[in-house]
Amino acid sequence: MTASILENIHQPSDIASLTPDALNVLAHEIRERLVQVTSVTGGHLASSLGAIEIILALHKLFDFSTDRLLFDVGHQSYAHKLITGRNNRFDTLRTFGGICGFPRRDESIYDAYDAGHASDSLSIAAGMALARDLKGTAEQIVAIIGDASLSGGMAFEALNHIGHECLDVNIVLNDNEMSISRNVGALSLYLGKIRTSKPYTHTRDTLESGLSRVGKLGRVLVGAGELAKSSVKKLLVPGMFFEDMGIKYIGPIDGHNIAALLDALAAARSVSGPVIIHAVTRKGSGYAPAERMPDVFHGVGAFNGETGELVRRDNSDLLPTYTQVFANALCEEARINSKLVAITAAMTDGTGLKEFSSEFPQRFFDVGIAEEHAVGFAAGMALGGLLPVCAIYSTFLQRAYDQMLIDVAQQKQHVVFAIDRAGLVGEDGQTHNGAFDLAYLSSIPGMRILAPASADDLRDSLHTALALNGGPVAVRYPRGTVIKAPTERCPKILPFGKARLVRIGNWTIDSKDTEVPQIKPDVAILAIGRFVSLARQVSDLLADEHFCTLVYNMIWAKPLDVDAIKHACSADLVVTLEDGSVSGGFGSSVAGIVSKGFAPLDKKATKTKTPPLMQLGLPDSFTVHGKVEALFEHLGLTPEVIAADVKTMLGK
Amino acid sequence: MTASILENIHQPSDIASLTPDALNVLAHEIRERLVQVTSVTGGHLASSLGAIEIILALHKLFDFSTDRLLFDVGHQSYAHKLITGRNNRFDTLRTFGGICGFPRRDESIYDAYDAGHASDSLSIAAGMALARDLKGTAEQIVAIIGDASLSGGMAFEALNHIGHECLDVNIVLNDNEMSISRNVGALSLYLGKIRTSKPYTHTRDTLESGLSRVGKLGRVLVGAGELAKSSVKKLLVPGMFFEDMGIKYIGPIDGHNIAALLDALAAARSVSGPVIIHAVTRKGSGYAPAERMPDVFHGVGAFNGETGELVRRDNSDLLPTYTQVFANALCEEARINSKLVAITAAMTDGTGLKEFSSEFPQRFFDVGIAEEHAVGFAAGMALGGLLPVCAIYSTFLQRAYDQMLIDVAQQKQHVVFAIDRAGLVGEDGQTHNGAFDLAYLSSIPGMRILAPASADDLRDSLHTALALNGGPVAVRYPRGTVIKAPTERCPKILPFGKARLVRIGNWTIDSKDTEVPQIKPDVAILAIGRFVSLARQVSDLLADEHFCTLVYNMIWAKPLDVDAIKHACSADLVVTLEDGSVSGGFGSSVAGIVSKGFAPLDKKATKTKTPPLMQLGLPDSFTVHGKVEALFEHLGLTPEVIAADVKTMLGK
Repeated sequence: MTASILENIHQPSDIASLTPDALNVLAHEIRERLVQVTSVTGGHLASSLGAIEIILALHKLFDFSTDRLLFDVGHQSYAHKLITGRNNRFDTLRTFGGICGFPRRDESIYDAYDAGHASDSLSIAAGMALARDLKGTAEQIVAIIGDASLSGGMAFEALNHIGHECLDVNIVLNDNEMSISRNVGALSLYLGKIRTSKPYTHTRDTLESGLSRVGKLGRVLVGAGELAKSSVKKLLVPGMFFEDMGIKYIGPIDGHNIAALLDALAAARSVSGPVIIHAVTRKGSGYAPAERMPDVFHGVGAFNGETGELVRRDNSDLLPTYTQVFANALCEEARINSKLVAITAAMTDGTGLKEFSSEFPQRFFDVGIAEEHAVGFAAGMALGGLLPVCAIYSTFLQRAYDQMLIDVAQQKQHVVFAIDRAGLVGEDGQTHNGAFDLAYLSSIPGMRILAPASADDLRDSLHTALALNGGPVAVRYPRGTVIKAPTERCPKILPFGKARLVRIGNWTIDSKDTEVPQIKPDVAILAIGRFVSLARQVSDLLADEHFCTLVYNMIWAKPLDVDAIKHACSADLVVTLEDGSVSGGFGSSVAGIVSKGFAPLDKKATKTKTPPLMQLGLPDSFTVHGKVEALFEHLGLTPEVIAADVKTMLGK
Repeated sequence: MTASILENIHQPSDIASLTPDALNVLAHEIRERLVQVTSVTGGHLASSLGAIEIILALHKLFDFSTDRLLFDVGHQSYAHKLITGRNNRFDTLRTFGGICGFPRRDESIYDAYDAGHASDSLSIAAGMALARDLKGTAEQIVAIIGDASLSGGMAFEALNHIGHECLDVNIVLNDNEMSISRNVGALSLYLGKIRTSKPYTHTRDTLESGLSRVGKLGRVLVGAGELAKSSVKKLLVPGMFFEDMGIKYIGPIDGHNIAALLDALAAARSVSGPVIIHAVTRKGSGYAPAERMPDVFHGVGAFNGETGELVRRDNSDLLPTYTQVFANALCEEARINSKLVAITAAMTDGTGLKEFSSEFPQRFFDVGIAEEHAVGFAAGMALGGLLPVCAIYSTFLQRAYDQMLIDVAQQKQHVVFAIDRAGLVGEDGQTHNGAFDLAYLSSIPGMRILAPASADDLRDSLHTALALNGGPVAVRYPRGTVIKAPTERCPKILPFGKARLVRIGNWTIDSKDTEVPQIKPDVAILAIGRFVSLARQVSDLLADEHFCTLVYNMIWAKPLDVDAIKHACSADLVVTLEDGSVSGGFGSSVAGIVSKGFAPLDKKATKTKTPPLMQLGLPDSFTVHGKVEALFEHLGLTPEVIAADVKTMLGK
């Protein structure tokens, strides 16, 4: 065979005639291709390597042009992309305009839904299955869900409904004993028991004889019961937990054995009603560096394909990330405050809490993919007298909006939310952007929101947040490196709700300035977070053309500094600049203040004079994937475009 | 015994000396007191009747001045309130300034957290238990959770964590086979099996011998396994589902048998690690009308204590509620559109879907307390080609913010959200107000938001929402009756994003007016939803003093009618009026437009002139319980106060 198999796969039907042996060769070729591409683009390599055989077996047995294949999260779908006509464009993975790292319906008819957040695939599957049954069509619905995603409450809610309605869905449990980092939860311990008690002993015969006894919910239980009698280990009858919910269980299966997978999936397909096929896989399977360090290769940047060594791309890697600054600052704080505890939801590495978890193992809690519980749990700890810091990405904290409202804010509990990945995240794209936190946090009564613009700001913000009791405080910061390394000084308490004027024209103000020049400004830019530096650049460009710009580092998105806003209104134009959606976020809150006017009207001047406000930030839509710089350019969030818009607004 | 026992209970320790027989008498007295009070005030009678014996047994065994008692939802806590020093004030239940219908820490040291939303108690318990263990104190943590609340994913996430950490918490599963209406889900079927297989056979001896074998997770499983061998029904070994999660199970127990409860709870208390005590209760227990109609007496208004007959309080009862108008309209739409399906999350009665569920049983889905799944499931049905209407209260839809963003809006799925209980709900108070939906919905890209001001508006809004494909549409409406019965005409499609000018001065505009008078207005009120009628009243008051007011019924909160806002800016003052939080809601979006100004600046007039904007609505805080009218008065949302504020702002 001179030509590779993969090169000749243009659509899934091209694998129909392949033998299991040929599929194994194809799996090998796919592994090489994934390492080749992701070593350049970065990506979710480890998960995608672990799911190759499952994906090949599924495409061999099902026809997903009509059957529906749902990937939970979707970061494990690369093999699926390669064999559904996207191999030739796969080099563009995660780049602007290129192939997305998650399934997208606009890329292929084989992508059944636009995944990205964990634990939702079973709900989508349930909806599709009921739609099918109501329409009277016959497509099969298959969901692939990782063991970690099963810990999300939404998945449980769906299982509960699927079991109750006895919906005909096939659920492949891709059990790699891992979430992004270590897996957690009693369910995970339970799956572990299954794995160790009955390692891959099922053959087609035992499967089929087992299945022949199955049909309706009652018979499922009886059937499983008969199986149980035969063994002293009946308590470890695999999957009794699922059977209790009315879901037939098949497994455990070796998730890298294509023949075994084909048998199990064929058996599952022939059953009406819900079935879980429990496939045990290795994250990173077939690529030694990823097998050795599956957490590093979960979401990896560019690396050397031969050695697995990570590539440092530019000098900015010499600067720490916001995450690292937060992580170090948190450890410093924890050393002097024994009440401080840290909580995350399967983001230990991503939020930088690994060091904290080593230094303070008793005070660290990774609750698994379970944001709702993470926040409720934090509220309980605060009620119990501790000071919880809940570190969750902006996009995933959306899951806990109600808990932030009811369990934390309503009860005035001092929980600190450390919100990483705020703003655009870049390559992961639209399901992962932290575009909405300024909006959803602003709507929460009693929430205090800090958006640091620098490493020092971040340390001070955390320090301030930990001191601000009587309710929740959020500190939100972006993915990526800081502009300047943090200084060595002790963190300080920031003045409550006070903005900082950092630039007047081309005059940069630092904290030592007691007097600032009194110049009539043309424009005032109220900026927040990482966009403070963008505002400075705009100010430089405008200064070159003799416009005087005020730049405020607002720091606080809630409460806002009304005095600063009032002062800003002495300019002819006010601009808000935020790395978040303009709809309901920081600029929207500023608009509420600006539009009020600053004095009651009198008879003579029945109209207050306020300058127009231009709200700049992320658009009221979902921003696609690509490098952050490319996206900002795409969105017109560059110094040049903003300076030009300001001049137009000023009529100049 | 001449004096009643209840009268002599001033704190929980007063029941310490009572025998089980005396406790039964006390339970009877409490029942009478609850019926007496709620027959006047209304309230969550049925649930509270069902939990009396559990509460008495708990207070007899534990000391909740240091131990912590957590009520999931909290609507079952009335007996707890009576014996913790609140009997003499219990007549004020659910009234403004009176006793809250849910536990409140500001009422009593015996209220450990401010409950209100389902399924969060186990997370709070986990947090408190870990705080205790870190602090090294010894208080017991007890949570009471209903079987319906267990279907919420957050509860599962917490169980998963509690089992994993082997936290010492006692969980009383108050299993009344009911959520607000019928219970649903595979877990509920499973609990049903337990109930029927082993009805109340446990005695203290079998309990203790069972418990003696227990200790660590491994032994729990072995212990339960030995029990299992003795019975052919081993698959129905009670609670294997929970044991699989590492949580010891005791039960089922008769939840109205105080002696049995005391035995089981004492046994549970002596176990270290998590225990579920499965108590089977009857909702409405001991009051015949509530036992007969537990759904009616779940959250009931005033009624005749003797007969259980509901009291009609005033003529407004002759008008339908918004809920009823929606319910009828939905059935009408469903008759002509076979793709329409309806989904709710344990709010079948509350959202008015009972009739729909009878007429279209195949197209109706109550997924139980599981808002996240409800919305994901709706997305799946939309992807499957159906037209789902998801009917959920404003406050509970907060749970599905992420699903609305990622599963629905991001995928541009046409799901209609019928959001009942928008705005203040009144007697249920701060955890139940629909204060945030305009804010959280506005932040969702592609969301269209309709806020009808009348019965006819609601029918038209639903009709319009069903026709608006390409993404989600929300229709939000308040609790309570409409002002005017709906007309008989067919519902019509509302012009997209168009507001309606309904009043100029004292000139009321109806749809037949082609020309409206051109008068220079003093003030323009942009109102939405139920506050359009408030705006009309303000306009009347101002007209009496010769101010000319424009009143807009905005109808659409997203997209906003920019032309109408521009026109409103011809007044000297613009007022926004919404039955929702001013922080991030409708007024905030209007502010974004007003503050922009409507033209680029030119050199001569460097400031655009826009009138000041006054944003009125619910404050950026949690509004307490009481009659809606009393609350609006408390908040200054009355025609008189608003008219006075307008005059002040106008400098007159």
